[in-house]
Amino acid sequence: MTRLASVGSSGRDGRLVIVSRDGSRHLPGPAPTMQAAIERWDELAASIAVAAAAVEAGEGEPLEIEALCAPLPRAYQYCEGSTYLSHMERNRAARNAPLPPGHGTTPAVLQGHSDRFLSPKEPIELGDHAWGLDLEATIGVIVGDVPMGVTPTQAASYVRALVLINDLTLRNVLPDEYAKGTGFFQAKPLRAFAPLAVTAEGLGDAWDGRLLHAEVRTWVNGVPLGTLRSAADAAFGFPEIISYAARTRPLAAGTIVGSGTISNRDPSAGFGCLAEKRAIEIQHGQSPSPYLLGGDTIRIEAFGDDGISIFGAMETTVVDANGGGSSSASGKG
Amino acid sequence: MTRLASVGSSGRDGRLVIVSRDGSRHLPGPAPTMQAAIERWDELAASIAVAAAAVEAGEGEPLEIEALCAPLPRAYQYCEGSTYLSHMERNRAARNAPLPPGHGTTPAVLQGHSDRFLSPKEPIELGDHAWGLDLEATIGVIVGDVPMGVTPTQAASYVRALVLINDLTLRNVLPDEYAKGTGFFQAKPLRAFAPLAVTAEGLGDAWDGRLLHAEVRTWVNGVPLGTLRSAADAAFGFPEIISYAARTRPLAAGTIVGSGTISNRDPSAGFGCLAEKRAIEIQHGQSPSPYLLGGDTIRIEAFGDDGISIFGAMETTVVDANGGGSSSASGKG
Repeated sequence: MTRLASVGSSGRDGRLVIVSRDGSRHLPGPAPTMQAAIERWDELAASIAVAAAAVEAGEGEPLEIEALCAPLPRAYQYCEGSTYLSHMERNRAARNAPLPPGHGTTPAVLQGHSDRFLSPKEPIELGDHAWGLDLEATIGVIVGDVPMGVTPTQAASYVRALVLINDLTLRNVLPDEYAKGTGFFQAKPLRAFAPLAVTAEGLGDAWDGRLLHAEVRTWVNGVPLGTLRSAADAAFGFPEIISYAARTRPLAAGTIVGSGTISNRDPSAGFGCLAEKRAIEIQHGQSPSPYLLGGDTIRIEAFGDDGISIFGAMETTVVDANGGGSSSASGKG
Repeated sequence: MTRLASVGSSGRDGRLVIVSRDGSRHLPGPAPTMQAAIERWDELAASIAVAAAAVEAGEGEPLEIEALCAPLPRAYQYCEGSTYLSHMERNRAARNAPLPPGHGTTPAVLQGHSDRFLSPKEPIELGDHAWGLDLEATIGVIVGDVPMGVTPTQAASYVRALVLINDLTLRNVLPDEYAKGTGFFQAKPLRAFAPLAVTAEGLGDAWDGRLLHAEVRTWVNGVPLGTLRSAADAAFGFPEIISYAARTRPLAAGTIVGSGTISNRDPSAGFGCLAEKRAIEIQHGQSPSPYLLGGDTIRIEAFGDDGISIFGAMETTVVDANGGGSSSASGKG
């Protein structure tokens, strides 16, 4: 399992390291940054594999997992698809909104921002309690240079590494943006990432070329929220989402393509976000769980069938950016 | 007028140069890339001004304007606001769609992609004639690190440089994306940029802290399409759009904030896009002008009151990526 990470002490991009399977040791990567490695993947893949074997054999220095930032601390593109249909179905039912045309037959793909990602343990600054902060457990792939017009069959070969994302959403900001019809913007605060990226090759059977086979667990304030199967109930695989995203333009190396919130149809699996939990609670006449506020903690972690934490844990605390008071006068749409 | 540009021969980011007012000479910039200069602006602004004075005084090497790529050949974020209301009003009227809530009182801000921008004379690859390719003449600002929650008054101080953009749109792909309610994705092919960025300080009276005062001219196949005043009919200034965009998260240095398509209320000024021209033609019972096809050329250029071309000319040819035949079977939503 070849694991890549970025040590956060070197500016906005960090410094690429190769990490041992148990997360205890690291060696310098063959490129200065993760972005540079993704751009020069064909040339560097062999060196990365050699370094991964060496660090596994005991070479390298001890690693403080707390020193890691997001695998790509910033990226030139982030987009995400609607892999798990029950996420949108539950959330739209809760606000009596119809499902979009093409639901279940073509992915809905959103353009996200990527100018800065939160480190795995970096606090999430919430500007206003009224915004309705929610987690969203999401799998992502980092791709190489994808030409315009690739088919799903071709798209699979451009997947370089997988990552685990908390694609946070401000639920109470969404209605205004839906009404405007111009996509999500203010509803998307900074995203957080688990510390380790794993190469597609290094995942073995856990990556089937379309989906990651893992158990993704979510907790809020230490209480389990979900134990989800990332390969279950997926209407689309990553190649279909990449092909959709590259229909009218190429995607440049380092683009992150997210799965959308992981969601299983069986509600006993729990949830990858609070919105779905609230939708089910409201449906059963229960009072809905609150969204996240200052002081709340979120943990997201993905485990392989061997029980190993694939990407390391993402454990973040929400903090009030300005005391949590309403700032809705400043530019609210 | 301090002008910055990127010479395209050095990989994905180009190499920063300082360009003389007449565009004939250049000196190396004090940082390797435009992105690095924007990140270290406070430290480098004095050196940039010194180099600009030196190149104006005759120092430096001859410049081939054809060697320039986009001022930022790729960026970590692109977003755009709805500065010119008549653009949306004409286009929504043409498809009998209502105006969005908040139209005219808060900007609608879109998240765009930024993983690769077209050089000023690079061909625009069109995958399918049926997509309805349209130009969109747009002014942009490149900002430094903008904190979350800045007010419009504070936001003005983060504007580092201005750029001229062709924010191309696939008009016939838009309806599917509007119906999905998830913003524009496939409707946005690669954007093109004029070769020169100009510092906010270097614009003098042409930049009033909110808007660029310029005449933006557009041509299709050599025929004038519009002669637009970029400071006229603007419902919002850049500071308002930046404040809106930074409401729930910071914006990282190098973020490009676009104005949205420049549009004047007086139709005799012409148009910054074909969609508005078509809307007026249809309104008058005329057959609408066609969208762009392989072989068509687009020219966009902005002039100061002194008649000088502020950003240099952007002159691009549309080419058929695959013979222009329909590829709508591959992933169409």
